Amino acid sequence: MFVSETQIRVRYADTDQMGVVYHSNYFDYFEVGRAEAIRQLGFTYAQMEDDGICMPIVDAHARFLRPALYDNLLTVKTTLKELPIHHKIEFHHEIYNEKNELLCSGKIILYLMEKSVMKRSVLPEVLRKMLLPYFQ
Amino acid sequence: MFVSETQIRVRYADTDQMGVVYHSNYFDYFEVGRAEAIRQLGFTYAQMEDDGICMPIVDAHARFLRPALYDNLLTVKTTLKELPIHHKIEFHHEIYNEKNELLCSGKIILYLMEKSVMKRSVLPEVLRKMLLPYFQ
Amino acid sequence: MFVSETQIRVRYADTDQMGVVYHSNYFDYFEVGRAEAIRQLGFTYAQMEDDGICMPIVDAHARFLRPALYDNLLTVKTTLKELPIHHKIEFHHEIYNEKNELLCSGKIILYLMEKSVMKRSVLPEVLRKMLLPYFQ
Amino acid sequence: MFVSETQIRVRYADTDQMGVVYHSNYFDYFEVGRAEAIRQLGFTYAQMEDDGICMPIVDAHARFLRPALYDNLLTVKTTLKELPIHHKIEFHHEIYNEKNELLCSGKIILYLMEKSVMKRSVLPEVLRKMLLPYFQ
Repeated sequence: MFVSETQIRVRYADTDQMGVVYHSNYFDYFEVGRAEAIRQLGFTYAQMEDDGICMPIVDAHARFLRPALYDNLLTVKTTLKELPIHHKIEFHHEIYNEKNELLCSGKIILYLMEKSVMKRSVLPEVLRKMLLPYFQ
Repeated sequence: MFVSETQIRVRYADTDQMGVVYHSNYFDYFEVGRAEAIRQLGFTYAQMEDDGICMPIVDAHARFLRPALYDNLLTVKTTLKELPIHHKIEFHHEIYNEKNELLCSGKIILYLMEKSVMKRSVLPEVLRKMLLPYFQ
Repeated sequence: MFVSETQIRVRYADTDQMGVVYHSNYFDYFEVGRAEAIRQLGFTYAQMEDDGICMPIVDAHARFLRPALYDNLLTVKTTLKELPIHHKIEFHHEIYNEKNELLCSGKIILYLMEKSVMKRSVLPEVLRKMLLPYFQ
Repeated sequence: MFVSETQIRVRYADTDQMGVVYHSNYFDYFEVGRAEAIRQLGFTYAQMEDDGICMPIVDAHARFLRPALYDNLLTVKTTLKELPIHHKIEFHHEIYNEKNELLCSGKIILYLMEKSVMKRSVLPEVLRKMLLPYFQ
């Protein structure tokens, strides 16, 4: 299992007239969680794209328990429960506020694709090696 | 069953560097679908908020089958399969492109809440009456 | 002078906790105004990009007079005061609410660029011909 | 003069199909710059709103020199050139990439307003005192 954490400060633009973070922004926060998870491994998603791999999202799910508020410093916890062996990769996300209350949890499924031909691919070997120690 | 359709033109701002609509925007499109569904009944969500009811989202799920592209004229089909009897309301959404290909489907669960006290509420009577003929 | 009008319904996602449309969204509305202006001429910006021209924004200015509110049906008025002869194109935008009150005015300057080499270009001949009658 | 700096990582959601940050996002980055400037003084904009002051934007201008790209770590430099004495406050913003190239500069004018009655107000005394040393 690979777990990573990063922090996000809620922007004014993310709030809505209910006075809370509008729900679709949480999916952007999840994406930041994934990018930082890959960076903490020593790689970047930007590098993956340069190497010809892209990762379109095929399934996105989130449950909203408590609202995030403007200026809250959120912790996004991103978990990879299994090492992807095929073209599918599944991230679990949890978002906490400063009181360590769980605000939102979600699961995002992405496909690993060869960008030039948009065909299914697998995890780049360099990233697979970086992840391997967490799954032994 | 109550079914409603509305159209959305994809904006440049909605695209990402993969050349397709970034996934979290579909949740904004779903929201447009719900707003127009209520308007087609003869009511508005804005009016509901003025009447003291708000509808925070508690669960959001989407599956992405094909990408939407810049300037595509999308059809958002919004379905209410059951007349809500308690505080929970569930919308099903499907998004089609101009070739009538299904791009994305989703389900959004919202709670009906009394805004002033943030307590669970039920569907406003006026809206319930408008919906009733579709569920008989 | 070429003047075009289009309508935009304010989405919930566009509001902020002040209960009004967050300012950066008006720039997205302006972009919709430009896209619809080109469409009303009989061309599309999507077609321009397919033809190898892109139009990055080099300058954006907006003045905010009155707030737009959730569910307002806005009219975006887009004006081209001069036929562009070089690589620069300048759009003026005004946004009105349903009471015909001016909410926001702005000016966006874009460069016409040849996409493949990112060099300055000029207005595609087909679009120049469509615009010509408005400037004689 | 009061100058403050903060960093922002470009999100995937902020890019468009031209492969660069879509222009309206820079206004969101500017807003982060202002929020962090106030925080570095020892106050927060959130606290200001709790104290009954809000700051709607009346004028926004940006010039775009070079594109910001996905995953770029941007530096937002926020400058207050004058201590506001009336209801008007003017922020200057500059955004740099990791090579210290200037990507974008802008000026945002806001009004200080008493939220409850939406009447013009002045800088809260506590914030004025924090700013005073920078303007002597």
